[in-house]
Amino acid sequence: MSNPRKVVIVGGVAGGASCAARARRLSEHSEIVVFERGPHVSFANCGLPYFIGREIKDAAKLQVQTPEKLNRNLALDVRENSEVLSIDRQRKVVAIRETNGGREYEESYDVLVLSPGAAPLKPPIPGIDRSGQFTLRNIPDMEAIDQWIDKVGAKSAVVVGGGYIGLEMVEQLRHRGLDVAVAEALPQVMAPLDAEMAELLHQELEAYGVRLYLGDPVAGFEEPAEGEEARASTVVLKSGQRLPGDIVILGLGVRPETSLARAAGLEIGDLGGIRVDEHMRTSDGDIYAIGDAVEVRHRVTNQWTLLPLAGPANRQGRVVADNIFDIPSVFKGSWGTAVLRLFDLTAACTGANSRQLDKEGITYVSLPLHPGSHAGYYPGAQPISMKILFDPTSGHLLGAQAVGRDGVDKRIDVLATAMAGGLTVDDIAEVELAYAPPYGSAKDPVNMAGMAAQNVKEGLVRIATAADVAGRDEAATVVLDVRDAPERDKFGFIEGSVNIPLGELRRRLGELPRDREIIVHCMSGQRSYMACRILVQEGFKARNFAGSWKTWQQRPRG
Amino acid sequence: MSNPRKVVIVGGVAGGASCAARARRLSEHSEIVVFERGPHVSFANCGLPYFIGREIKDAAKLQVQTPEKLNRNLALDVRENSEVLSIDRQRKVVAIRETNGGREYEESYDVLVLSPGAAPLKPPIPGIDRSGQFTLRNIPDMEAIDQWIDKVGAKSAVVVGGGYIGLEMVEQLRHRGLDVAVAEALPQVMAPLDAEMAELLHQELEAYGVRLYLGDPVAGFEEPAEGEEARASTVVLKSGQRLPGDIVILGLGVRPETSLARAAGLEIGDLGGIRVDEHMRTSDGDIYAIGDAVEVRHRVTNQWTLLPLAGPANRQGRVVADNIFDIPSVFKGSWGTAVLRLFDLTAACTGANSRQLDKEGITYVSLPLHPGSHAGYYPGAQPISMKILFDPTSGHLLGAQAVGRDGVDKRIDVLATAMAGGLTVDDIAEVELAYAPPYGSAKDPVNMAGMAAQNVKEGLVRIATAADVAGRDEAATVVLDVRDAPERDKFGFIEGSVNIPLGELRRRLGELPRDREIIVHCMSGQRSYMACRILVQEGFKARNFAGSWKTWQQRPRG
Repeated sequence: MSNPRKVVIVGGVAGGASCAARARRLSEHSEIVVFERGPHVSFANCGLPYFIGREIKDAAKLQVQTPEKLNRNLALDVRENSEVLSIDRQRKVVAIRETNGGREYEESYDVLVLSPGAAPLKPPIPGIDRSGQFTLRNIPDMEAIDQWIDKVGAKSAVVVGGGYIGLEMVEQLRHRGLDVAVAEALPQVMAPLDAEMAELLHQELEAYGVRLYLGDPVAGFEEPAEGEEARASTVVLKSGQRLPGDIVILGLGVRPETSLARAAGLEIGDLGGIRVDEHMRTSDGDIYAIGDAVEVRHRVTNQWTLLPLAGPANRQGRVVADNIFDIPSVFKGSWGTAVLRLFDLTAACTGANSRQLDKEGITYVSLPLHPGSHAGYYPGAQPISMKILFDPTSGHLLGAQAVGRDGVDKRIDVLATAMAGGLTVDDIAEVELAYAPPYGSAKDPVNMAGMAAQNVKEGLVRIATAADVAGRDEAATVVLDVRDAPERDKFGFIEGSVNIPLGELRRRLGELPRDREIIVHCMSGQRSYMACRILVQEGFKARNFAGSWKTWQQRPRG
Repeated sequence: MSNPRKVVIVGGVAGGASCAARARRLSEHSEIVVFERGPHVSFANCGLPYFIGREIKDAAKLQVQTPEKLNRNLALDVRENSEVLSIDRQRKVVAIRETNGGREYEESYDVLVLSPGAAPLKPPIPGIDRSGQFTLRNIPDMEAIDQWIDKVGAKSAVVVGGGYIGLEMVEQLRHRGLDVAVAEALPQVMAPLDAEMAELLHQELEAYGVRLYLGDPVAGFEEPAEGEEARASTVVLKSGQRLPGDIVILGLGVRPETSLARAAGLEIGDLGGIRVDEHMRTSDGDIYAIGDAVEVRHRVTNQWTLLPLAGPANRQGRVVADNIFDIPSVFKGSWGTAVLRLFDLTAACTGANSRQLDKEGITYVSLPLHPGSHAGYYPGAQPISMKILFDPTSGHLLGAQAVGRDGVDKRIDVLATAMAGGLTVDDIAEVELAYAPPYGSAKDPVNMAGMAAQNVKEGLVRIATAADVAGRDEAATVVLDVRDAPERDKFGFIEGSVNIPLGELRRRLGELPRDREIIVHCMSGQRSYMACRILVQEGFKARNFAGSWKTWQQRPRG
C-alpha cells in the first residue's frame, strides 16, 4: 500500500471529483482537499440545457453530489466557493480566497491536481456584455437563463454558435416554446461532422422551424431598433442580417482555464491548454492537470488537441489518482467520440473527420452508406446516414460519423471500440454483433461499412464522391443511374445522367462508351456497386458513387 | 480476375444467398446455380415469429428476394422447389428432384457450396406428431401456425422449449391474445445466459401472465382428457403436470442438415455438423459448407460448436465466394453474440458463459453490475443487469451478458467488438464512447465494468458472489450491509446481515470482527466497494459482494 499523501484538487466537477473519489479508495489515510470556486461540486454540467426545456424538471437532480455526502462516504474535505488564487511551487502551497466573505489562507500539498475546466469564449464583439445575453457553463448560468426567460416573458431567442451547447440550447428553447434563430460563422453547424453530415442537422433545424444563418459571423449585439421586438438585443450579422431576440445565448466555444497554471510557470501548449505527459503530469512533477484545461493527443492524428469532453475528463481523474498512489496508469489520448441529440435526430462521431485528415495530410477514403437501423422487413426501421474514413492501404479505421433517428449512438460506439482495438475494415466486416429483427440486421450497418470498404481496399471497386460528380468533366465522364425509371420520377435525378436500370444493364452495354469514365449511382450505392462490377469485368472504366442519390441529397448548401 | 467457374449452391437462404450474390459480384461470367428445396429463397427466417403476432402485418415482407429479381439483377439461376438428392464427388455432379412434378436430373459443378441449414429437433416423445403441433423454420411452417390458430379459434398455447424461437413465439402468441404456458426441461430459459440473468426473463414472463414450467421435461403429448380445454394436445410433463393447449409450438432446438454431406462421405464433426476448415472448405476441396449445417470454432473456448446464427452464416457465404475466386478470406469462428427481445426486456450476450468456461476449465472472474442505461439525472434511465466474465490474470474479456429495457444491445455490441479486438478490462475501462445525457454516462456501463474488473485484477478488491453469500460458513463470515437503514426497510435484507451505513463505517470499525471474513454489500456494489477499501486498509479481511442486493434478487429459483 502507498504512503498517505496530502492531495489538493483545484476544481470539483467531472475530472476533479473522479480523481478525489479514486484517490480516497486507493488511500484511506491520505488527506484529500477539493477546492471549488463555484457553489457546486460534482454537478451534471452536461445536463444543464435540459433543465431549460424542462426535460429535467428538478434542478436539484443536477447536483449529483453534495460536500456533506462526499465527506460522509469518502472522507473528502470539500470546500466550495473557494477560489485558488495562486500556486507557490517552491513551498508547495496554494493560496485560497473564500468567495463568500473573502477570507484568504494557504493550504499545503504533497500533490496538486488542477481541474479548473474551461471558460466560455466571449470574443470582443461590440455589445457582447449586454444584459439578456448568456453563456451556459454552470448551475448559476442555467438559473440566470431560466429566470430571464420568465422575467421578460421571452418569446424569441438568438443562439450564436452551432456547436454542442448552442444546438442543445436551440432544441431546449424550442421545447420551451420560443422562436429560435441560430447564427454560425462557419458554413455548417457542428464542426466535428463533415459538411454533408451537418447538412442533415440543417434540415432538421429547419423542419423544427429554427431559422438558420450559416457562414455569417456576428458583427455586434445592438440595442433593438424601432419596431424590432427584442427584450435583449438585436444580433447583427456580418451580412447585415438583424436578429432580434428576447434572449441571446452565446455558444462560441470554450477556452482552457489556465491562469493559475500560467502564473505558476507551468508549460502551456500551443493551443492554450496545459501541457501534460501521458500520466497527466504537468511540467512540475508534483502537479497534475486534467479535463477541459489540458491539451491531449488526438489518437488518430497524434496532434495535440483541445477536446472538452466529460468522459475523458473522468478517466483522466482516475489516471491521476492511480499515479499519485503508484499505479502507473496512462491516458493515451482522446478519439473525440461525441454525440448530440437534435430534436428527433442523433448525430455522433468518433476519430478524425475529413478536415482533420486533410490538414494532417493523412491519406484516407471516405465511404458513405445508408443502412437501416434494423432489418427492413421489421417495422420501424429508420435510415442512418453513416460514413467511415479509413486508410485504403492498411484498412485501419480513422473516423466514423452517423446521423439518424435510431441506432446511431450504437454504431458509433461500436466503431469507437473498433478503433480502440486497432481494427481494420476487414475486421469490422466480420465483427459479430447482436442480431434480431428489432435491433439490427444479419449484416449490421457496421459490417456493411466494413465490407464496402474492403471492396475498395481490395481494388474491386473505385469510388466517386458527390464532389466528383458535381465537378465532373462532362466530355470525359458519363453519370449512369441504374435505378428503375419510377425511382427517378419519384425522387429526382442528377442532371445529365443516363438511366439504365441494373436489371437491363447486361443487355444494354452497347449503349455505354468505352472511352469515357462511367460514374454509376443508384439510391444508396449497392446496386451501383453491382453495376460497377459488371462494367469493370466487361472492360469499362467505372466508379461507384458511394452513398449515391441519398448522399447527393446531403450536398452542403451554398 | 479469376477464371469463371460453375458454382452450384445447395440452399438459397442466408449464407447460400449471400454466397451467390458475392460470387456474382466477383465473377460476372461464372455460372451460378442455386437449388432451394423449399418454395422460397432468401426469406427472412428471423422474422417469422413476428408475423404470428402481427408485428409484421404483410407476410410478403418476409420474402426478401424473388428468383426473378435475383436473376434480373445478379444473373443467378435460382431453382426453387428443387431438392438436391445426392452428390457424386467423382463426376462432380449433383442429382436433383423437382418437388413439384418429380422430374429428376443432374447438374455438374466446378465448386459445390452446401448451405442446407438445420432442421427442427423432434425427439421421439410419444405423441410428438399429433396435429396442432408445430415447429417454425420456414414460411410454410409460419402459415400453418397462423391458419391453425384461426381455424380452431385458439385461445391457449403451450410452447415447449425456452430458447430463442420458443420465447419469441411466447411473446408473439401473447400479442395475438393467447394464454401461454412454457415448458422447459432445463432449470432456466435461454441456455446461453447464466442462471441469474435468465431469472430476469422468468420474472418478465410471469409479469406478462405466461405460466412457466422449468426443469420439467415433456413426457408426452396426449389426447386431451375429459374436461381439458385443448384443440391440439395436452402436453404432459415429467412431473405429471398437464398443460392443455389449442396449439403446441415445439421449440426444442435444431440439428444440422447433414444427410447429403454424410451420404457423400464428407467429414462430420463430433457434434453432428459438417466439419470445415477456416476457409469453410469441407474434407472435399471442391465442396464448401456454411451456415447452420456446419460446426464452427468458438472464439473464446476454441472448441467446435454449433451456433445457428444468421450473422455468421451470411459472413461465411461471403468467405466462400471469396475463396472460390481466389481471395483467401477466412472465417475465424463465432463469438455467439446474440440478442432476444422478450416483451419489454432485451437480453443479449457475447462470448462464453459461466457454464462453458467451467466446462473447459478456463479460469475466470464473473463480475455483475447494475448501471443505468444513461445518466441518472436525465429522465427515463433504465437499470441494466450486466455482467462480464474475464481472465483475472491477463484481463482479457471472455464473455458478457446484459438484460434490461434500454441500451442492452448497444453495450453487448461494444463488448463483442472489444473481444474481437482482443481488448482487456484495462482497455474497456477507457474506451471512449459517445456520451450525452440521453445516451449514456460520462462513465459508460462498459467503462464501469472495465474499472470494476481492473480493481479485481489489480488486487484492490476481492469479490464474493451470491453463491458465496448463500453458502457462507456463518461462524467464519459476517455479511455487512452498508446501505442506509431505510433501504433495508424498503427493499429487504439478507438474513443475518449486520448493518453499518457506509457513512458511519469509519467510526464504527470497532463493531466488526478481525478474525472473520467480512462480505460487504450495498444496493449494487459501489458503496460496498468503498467499504471494502476502508476495511482492507484498516486490516480487516473483506470481500465485496459484486452486484450486491440487486444481484441477490436475481438468484436462480429452486
